[in-house]
Amino acid sequence: MSKKQGQQTIVFTSPPLISSWASLVGPKEGQGPWGEDFDQVLDDYLYDEQTWEKAESKMLREAVKQAISKRYYQPSEIELLISGDLLNQIVSANYAARELSIPFLGMYGACSTMAESMLTAAMAVDGGFFSRVVAAVSSHHYTAERQFRTPIEQGVQKSATSQWTATAAGAVLLEAVPGGNPRITSATIGQVIDMGQSDAANMGSAMAPAAVKTIKAHFDDLNRSPDYYDLIVTGDLGKVGMALAQELFIKEGLLPQPNYSDCGVLLYNDRQDVNSGGSGCGSSAAMLCGPLLKKMSEGKINKLLLVATGALMSPTTSFQGETIPSIAHAVALENI
Amino acid sequence: MSKKQGQQTIVFTSPPLISSWASLVGPKEGQGPWGEDFDQVLDDYLYDEQTWEKAESKMLREAVKQAISKRYYQPSEIELLISGDLLNQIVSANYAARELSIPFLGMYGACSTMAESMLTAAMAVDGGFFSRVVAAVSSHHYTAERQFRTPIEQGVQKSATSQWTATAAGAVLLEAVPGGNPRITSATIGQVIDMGQSDAANMGSAMAPAAVKTIKAHFDDLNRSPDYYDLIVTGDLGKVGMALAQELFIKEGLLPQPNYSDCGVLLYNDRQDVNSGGSGCGSSAAMLCGPLLKKMSEGKINKLLLVATGALMSPTTSFQGETIPSIAHAVALENI
Repeated sequence: MSKKQGQQTIVFTSPPLISSWASLVGPKEGQGPWGEDFDQVLDDYLYDEQTWEKAESKMLREAVKQAISKRYYQPSEIELLISGDLLNQIVSANYAARELSIPFLGMYGACSTMAESMLTAAMAVDGGFFSRVVAAVSSHHYTAERQFRTPIEQGVQKSATSQWTATAAGAVLLEAVPGGNPRITSATIGQVIDMGQSDAANMGSAMAPAAVKTIKAHFDDLNRSPDYYDLIVTGDLGKVGMALAQELFIKEGLLPQPNYSDCGVLLYNDRQDVNSGGSGCGSSAAMLCGPLLKKMSEGKINKLLLVATGALMSPTTSFQGETIPSIAHAVALENI
Repeated sequence: MSKKQGQQTIVFTSPPLISSWASLVGPKEGQGPWGEDFDQVLDDYLYDEQTWEKAESKMLREAVKQAISKRYYQPSEIELLISGDLLNQIVSANYAARELSIPFLGMYGACSTMAESMLTAAMAVDGGFFSRVVAAVSSHHYTAERQFRTPIEQGVQKSATSQWTATAAGAVLLEAVPGGNPRITSATIGQVIDMGQSDAANMGSAMAPAAVKTIKAHFDDLNRSPDYYDLIVTGDLGKVGMALAQELFIKEGLLPQPNYSDCGVLLYNDRQDVNSGGSGCGSSAAMLCGPLLKKMSEGKINKLLLVATGALMSPTTSFQGETIPSIAHAVALENI
């Protein structure tokens, strides 16, 4: 059987095992509905470092170290690290990789980077190249604010459509071993979609069409219907983007499913002041490497489709009048 | 035979064919020693666009289109695009991918991105996931200057160790087909190395140890000696970095080889005012997708080791007093 199915989907013939995972989150994320499910909730946003940027890189590094130590590995026993983040030149990942000394491939897919890294890692394992690969990402509210938006100290009021960049890091360890669950069984690689939206304070709406297109491609390519999965979860569309996605599902003939949600909506509770919801590549990474993989290990979820979404503009392209190109990658995780 | 050899190297069991390639360069690169070997030399730096950033993205897009049109493919027949560049949020690649509508994975490895994208593409092909994958990168002198350094209009004098970011884009098409040359036979994935250098105007020196470490790992892992290759070419160490690399080769017991050079040194001639030499991920991409692959197709080079190097800092980490982490990935191209 060909590993490529249909237009955009690959099926793993020896589905890599997610043998361990870890998540670290900031104080706000710890106060949300899933605080008990993360490996570590930080007391503050600096994590004993001098800058938020160093704190974010340390969170990423610690997520990797905690994931691999659960399997009693040393970093030197990990063959490949695939990682990225939201910062210019993905410095959180670069500096984490410097400390870990694991052969390293850096990725950038904005908030889609967790799914992008996981599917690339799964290709590296199922393709027979490596037997122990870590995929990991991070985001940090305060590093993202000062890079993408305005100085925190300025106290600019946020629009209702805006999202709160999560302070969070997540890591998964993929192994080529028999036995055990959950496993990555297939993945759908997204195309870049741009419906002409230019409001960087409403990224959920920009990304929703990309998410729906990738989900539709996934079902078409594998000849599956949405009820195949116990849960389909988009990366971080937030409330506004999730509502738009649900409208688009109807247009595409994919009726709204009770088994659909969004990591940006799930991550915080309604009393937390995050406007449309969470965002940042740490958002889907923490939800996955916290509550979702926990539920898979308990058998409460047996088939999960993670569809991480990314808004691929930069402040420079926004200043230059460009609209927001978006992407979504889907990764299927199954207890088989 | 295991596809993984030694610590950091993977060997492709069905080496992907580089079935076509294309390169576009700016006016300065066209006036260098290899002007005749590029597919297109631009008349100016704007390429009929309103901004340098849009021009760079167009160069990348055109390199991809020209590479695939040489094999009479349409973009819709290409299964995967793996691409990156130097700009914040890799917007050159993102916007090129938007126009091309090819499933897309974005990478960031600074000036190592061409080798990183090629080896990932080779895994995707040799792993049996895709049969037609493009790897492509770009850089642009004026987009890099205003992002990483100072406004062009300011006319800041460059130090002698500084390098000139190449205005260049290169693309290779990898195919899983029998017959034909050259092919990607193996690759060595680098670790992040940081020897404590913090001068962003001397990136060649920061990257040289990473290049030498990856080259040594490649030889150790495959039990090869440097004379296996007709040419070993580092990405863009420039004159200063290349001299340091040659010193380090001696320390590592790899005697200086007549078959070693550097893309940053090769790209310009001595009369061009580029201080230590060229840099930017377009530098190694254009040298590869211009003169080097041409020489391979003519049989003048039969075994080439491309070792693209990247300096993984950002302006923010430099401002925060960090040193420069560096990486190098090696890709072996052979007529077999």
